[in-house]
Amino acid sequence: METLAVIKIGGNIIDDEEKLHAFLSAFAAIKGKKILVHGGGKLATKLASTLGIQQQLVDGRRITDAETLKIVTMVYAGYINKRIVAALQALNCNALGLSGADGNAILAHKRGVGNIDYGFVGDVDAIGKALLDQLLRQEYSLVFAPITHDGKGQLLNTNADTIAKEIAEALSGSFVVSLVFSFEKSGVLLDANDDSSVIGKIDAKYYKALKEKQLIFAGMIPKLDNAFAALAAGVQKVIIGRAEELPNLLAGQSGTTIVQGTTIVNE
Amino acid sequence: METLAVIKIGGNIIDDEEKLHAFLSAFAAIKGKKILVHGGGKLATKLASTLGIQQQLVDGRRITDAETLKIVTMVYAGYINKRIVAALQALNCNALGLSGADGNAILAHKRGVGNIDYGFVGDVDAIGKALLDQLLRQEYSLVFAPITHDGKGQLLNTNADTIAKEIAEALSGSFVVSLVFSFEKSGVLLDANDDSSVIGKIDAKYYKALKEKQLIFAGMIPKLDNAFAALAAGVQKVIIGRAEELPNLLAGQSGTTIVQGTTIVNE
Repeated sequence: METLAVIKIGGNIIDDEEKLHAFLSAFAAIKGKKILVHGGGKLATKLASTLGIQQQLVDGRRITDAETLKIVTMVYAGYINKRIVAALQALNCNALGLSGADGNAILAHKRGVGNIDYGFVGDVDAIGKALLDQLLRQEYSLVFAPITHDGKGQLLNTNADTIAKEIAEALSGSFVVSLVFSFEKSGVLLDANDDSSVIGKIDAKYYKALKEKQLIFAGMIPKLDNAFAALAAGVQKVIIGRAEELPNLLAGQSGTTIVQGTTIVNE
Repeated sequence: METLAVIKIGGNIIDDEEKLHAFLSAFAAIKGKKILVHGGGKLATKLASTLGIQQQLVDGRRITDAETLKIVTMVYAGYINKRIVAALQALNCNALGLSGADGNAILAHKRGVGNIDYGFVGDVDAIGKALLDQLLRQEYSLVFAPITHDGKGQLLNTNADTIAKEIAEALSGSFVVSLVFSFEKSGVLLDANDDSSVIGKIDAKYYKALKEKQLIFAGMIPKLDNAFAALAAGVQKVIIGRAEELPNLLAGQSGTTIVQGTTIVNE
């Protein structure tokens, strides 16, 4: 089977013109099939603030009301997505940008109202595997904005990490998939303040131990849970690390590699 | 050869939620392959004004400076494009939205500075025929935002009528193409103030006569020039008419049909 790299980049890279360009050059140079999933960056928040649209945060999480959905659709699926696609085209990478509504690529449902009403936030139900498969085999590199739809005409704001994971899982039957969560840190750190304390490899048992000892930074837990779920669903490897080191991450030479196996490393 | 309808809708339909929905229902119901090219609507102007970005007009034409380009990319390729795609998906039309940068679908160059510097405005050089052909044959209906790129990383603002014409021409070798320019009037009118004065059919000779007598509203001339150019390049028919009457336009039962032939009608 052919290889496929599914790579998520976070907002801080998108906000930094120079870092973004370096990252996109590395992405364009990846051999084999590839998919980029991008987050939002600060531009949406900035635009909302300029427009006087108050951002509601509940327990540190942003609520997507109708006006905020409009803004994230404009910024994520419009400005950021097309700017990345145009930049990749200039790097001889035949990129094609998609939201989840396009070709029904990502079907989601509006999150139910429990203690918190997140507004127009979508949880993924299905990936349009056939479309992605066709486009990849036609040599397009795909660029996903974190906007999905519910099939009934409603666009929804969806977590980019989750989109990357769901796409990686869905395509793991057709490709040997590496899933990369790239961000501003060197990987999963033992000491959140020491960027050199990267854990090279984590398996399920070690992860459990780290969590019990509360040695995992809380913000990292959803990423790691996603990683283990992806491995269980057939993704070959998951790597977490610094966006600027993309080629090394894919080669297993930097960042944290998440493995399912029971071998315990670094303990 | 299969049929393909390439349909351009103008901004006034996009700005009207009810009219837009009626139009999209009619679009979704079209048998055979179809492509929708949408213009911008007033939202971009409104957003620019709210953000305090002054819109420069020279001879009635909008200049696309860097900030305006950002806004039209957000609004056209983001908000409007994805809203239309999601609405079509809800109508069981498997729509896929594209800008010209996606898959290198529309390559353009920045318009040279003559008497007027239009800024980031692009004139079309090439249509990515293979991509469009593949997607149409895979049963996707395409939705184009009027944003192109220069292949060097620069996005460009491009006239939606021109995009529709160029796409129709490029695909006329693979499909029997009908090109529809739909807008707020019933067709090409003999009396601009009388919507019932629609000219049913115009050929090249009659067009020349109407222009000589200055019976053609100036704003209609670029549309008609585009129409005749498309026919000369292999498009089978071009129809100009009211967006709400889409099914009748395609059936030749309303609007103005532009024909190349020398038969003179309505004179």
